[in-house]
Amino acid sequence: MVRLNPNYRKLVAGYLFSEIARRRQAFKDSHPEDKIWDLGIGNTTEPLTPAVSEGLEQGVNLLRSPDTYKGYGPERGMNELRESIAEQYFRRHGVDLTPSEIFVSDGAKPDTANIQSIFSPRTSIALQDPVYPVYLDTNVIAGRTGKFDEKTGKYERVIYMPCTEENGFIPEIPSEKAGLVYLCSPNNPTGTVMTRKSLERFVEYAHDHKSVIIFDSAYSDFITESGNLRSIYEIPDARSCAIEVSSFSKNAGFTGVRLGWTAVPNSLVVEGSNPGAVNNVWNRRQSTFFNGASNIAQTGGLLGVLSEKGQEECRELVAHYMGNAEIIRNGLDELGLRFYGGVNAPYIWMKTPDEMLSWDFFDKLLEEAHVVGTPGAGFGPSGEGFFRFSAFGHRNEVEQAMESIKSNLRL
Amino acid sequence: MVRLNPNYRKLVAGYLFSEIARRRQAFKDSHPEDKIWDLGIGNTTEPLTPAVSEGLEQGVNLLRSPDTYKGYGPERGMNELRESIAEQYFRRHGVDLTPSEIFVSDGAKPDTANIQSIFSPRTSIALQDPVYPVYLDTNVIAGRTGKFDEKTGKYERVIYMPCTEENGFIPEIPSEKAGLVYLCSPNNPTGTVMTRKSLERFVEYAHDHKSVIIFDSAYSDFITESGNLRSIYEIPDARSCAIEVSSFSKNAGFTGVRLGWTAVPNSLVVEGSNPGAVNNVWNRRQSTFFNGASNIAQTGGLLGVLSEKGQEECRELVAHYMGNAEIIRNGLDELGLRFYGGVNAPYIWMKTPDEMLSWDFFDKLLEEAHVVGTPGAGFGPSGEGFFRFSAFGHRNEVEQAMESIKSNLRL
Repeated sequence: MVRLNPNYRKLVAGYLFSEIARRRQAFKDSHPEDKIWDLGIGNTTEPLTPAVSEGLEQGVNLLRSPDTYKGYGPERGMNELRESIAEQYFRRHGVDLTPSEIFVSDGAKPDTANIQSIFSPRTSIALQDPVYPVYLDTNVIAGRTGKFDEKTGKYERVIYMPCTEENGFIPEIPSEKAGLVYLCSPNNPTGTVMTRKSLERFVEYAHDHKSVIIFDSAYSDFITESGNLRSIYEIPDARSCAIEVSSFSKNAGFTGVRLGWTAVPNSLVVEGSNPGAVNNVWNRRQSTFFNGASNIAQTGGLLGVLSEKGQEECRELVAHYMGNAEIIRNGLDELGLRFYGGVNAPYIWMKTPDEMLSWDFFDKLLEEAHVVGTPGAGFGPSGEGFFRFSAFGHRNEVEQAMESIKSNLRL
Repeated sequence: MVRLNPNYRKLVAGYLFSEIARRRQAFKDSHPEDKIWDLGIGNTTEPLTPAVSEGLEQGVNLLRSPDTYKGYGPERGMNELRESIAEQYFRRHGVDLTPSEIFVSDGAKPDTANIQSIFSPRTSIALQDPVYPVYLDTNVIAGRTGKFDEKTGKYERVIYMPCTEENGFIPEIPSEKAGLVYLCSPNNPTGTVMTRKSLERFVEYAHDHKSVIIFDSAYSDFITESGNLRSIYEIPDARSCAIEVSSFSKNAGFTGVRLGWTAVPNSLVVEGSNPGAVNNVWNRRQSTFFNGASNIAQTGGLLGVLSEKGQEECRELVAHYMGNAEIIRNGLDELGLRFYGGVNAPYIWMKTPDEMLSWDFFDKLLEEAHVVGTPGAGFGPSGEGFFRFSAFGHRNEVEQAMESIKSNLRL
């Protein structure tokens, strides 16, 4: 006899973005004539740039010829790609990682989802609140949490680190001991970058409590203000207590192409294990459950995204989305709404008017302005009363969406 | 404080293919002048066929234009691709599945690895012995097994179903109750296809014990003898007790491109859950831990592999590999070695001469003939004394490898 994993029943409703898609579809079905603008899901909208698509085409071409065809690739990903990531994402910022410390994957979501599985089932976890729901949901499924409490909006046995207007959306270190500490910076959904000082405090905390920090830097290429850290390893002590996950999804338009990486330094140590052990176990996990990112995506990453021309084009692509962010910020400003982010991240985090609940504002915005956004409550209890606008969109659509909000939203 | 998942320590040595790569590299380092032929790992070697690579190129081209660019795709995979799989892999064999019952993935390995996670941690598992190691390893990591017993070569709390010369490598149903029953047919490594009668017994067993069968049909396109089942759903009762996993890896040369699928029928029921619940939970699992197969691979699957021309070309590709299988079989025959398979699967399963241990024969074959194969013992205790030859290779390499074996192997 077999039963389903009972932890799935602990999950609250659907995955946030599935629920948004459901409500959007319901509105569409009942208003078939109306145009809906989407400032909701963080999905890229602009076509691949020339150098990037040429890199991918090159990836296909290599598979056409008997001399260059390759099947399964190296377990950790193509060597040259890992070397190039080590150079461009780490050495350039003064961080010396070897290619063997970098694992190429099919994106930051799978990696931040799966990384918990290499740690003890009894590990306690600490999360920014609000934050990208995948960190929490995967730990609920893994059985590390208790029940969901409807009143508080929290799971038992999870350490929530509130990110609020009061603390500038930068969390304090937890007062309790956490085994795994998830940090997303620039943050999804608040759009806030953690300061060097705050990251230093977390690294110190991790050393004091023998914790591991899971640092999600998927939006690091969106940082526009100088002085902000792009990698947690810019703090030297982080190499013995942090895993960093990142992605080509948003900066290169690879959301559908699927390519990312995870750095597991050899010097990372956990209780009861020697240096190198965490790196080895992650390798064992990946070589058992995964078979590599598509070699087309990897070639596209190496010859396209990470080429000089590709990097230049990707900076322009990011600038396009950040231009959208400015339009959204200006529009909300005109309406006198309070908001944060949108400067070092493609997300604008808005306080709902009149203390409205997030999902109520979602429905109101959809009904009145025909604009889809993301309810802050979907990212954690401290997200209640906030609303996320995403800067991913075609310029004219973002402009029309903001015009519609300005004209039709009844404030 | 955080520790590593202790189940990783229960795993025996490295992942089989990593260990082979290690020994191969050691031989290469000490014999830098010698050519090594590879009849080991099941990795494709022939370039993509024209229609398939055009399909992939089309996948890249769609991402170049603002009108056709897509980011994240539908959670279960592109609709047209699921429709085409339903048509060509199921309806064509008399099986009526809807696209909502098919989940596109990045390959059969990740799916057969991850599927266990949606079931209760206490579920007991039954495995063919020998079989592809991923089913066992992922359950060891999930904590469903006890310790490994060096003497028997078995894990505690695993039901091994021996596939031996005596039973024609077709397992008997277990005498104990198993929650999950993994069946791989055509089998890797024995090359044996399960008969309709044996599959019917397993389906009956699953109904009697409320078990779920995980049916891996990744090699179904290699079946050459008529009368063999390509899908377990050709047995109608299987729809309420089986999940089927398959892949484009071997039949279309997609080992590195990464594309596969899993069918979870709505009528599949497990204890304590309604019809549709397993399908829903797998959807929740995939939408939380995964972000879809590369849209380039999906377009290549749809417009390339599954096009009429693509299907024709893929049949020729399969015929090429099966031609290699014939060369290997003929060579082993000439040497008077006993072997099985290689008719409905790209694997030849050879009895080692003089009752040699599998890894000893591996070393002997490498030392004497400079040929890499796969030790049967790596696939389970009943694989001891057997050796797997893979038919994946360039024709001239396979011919040279067999010539070298015939000339140099000291029997």
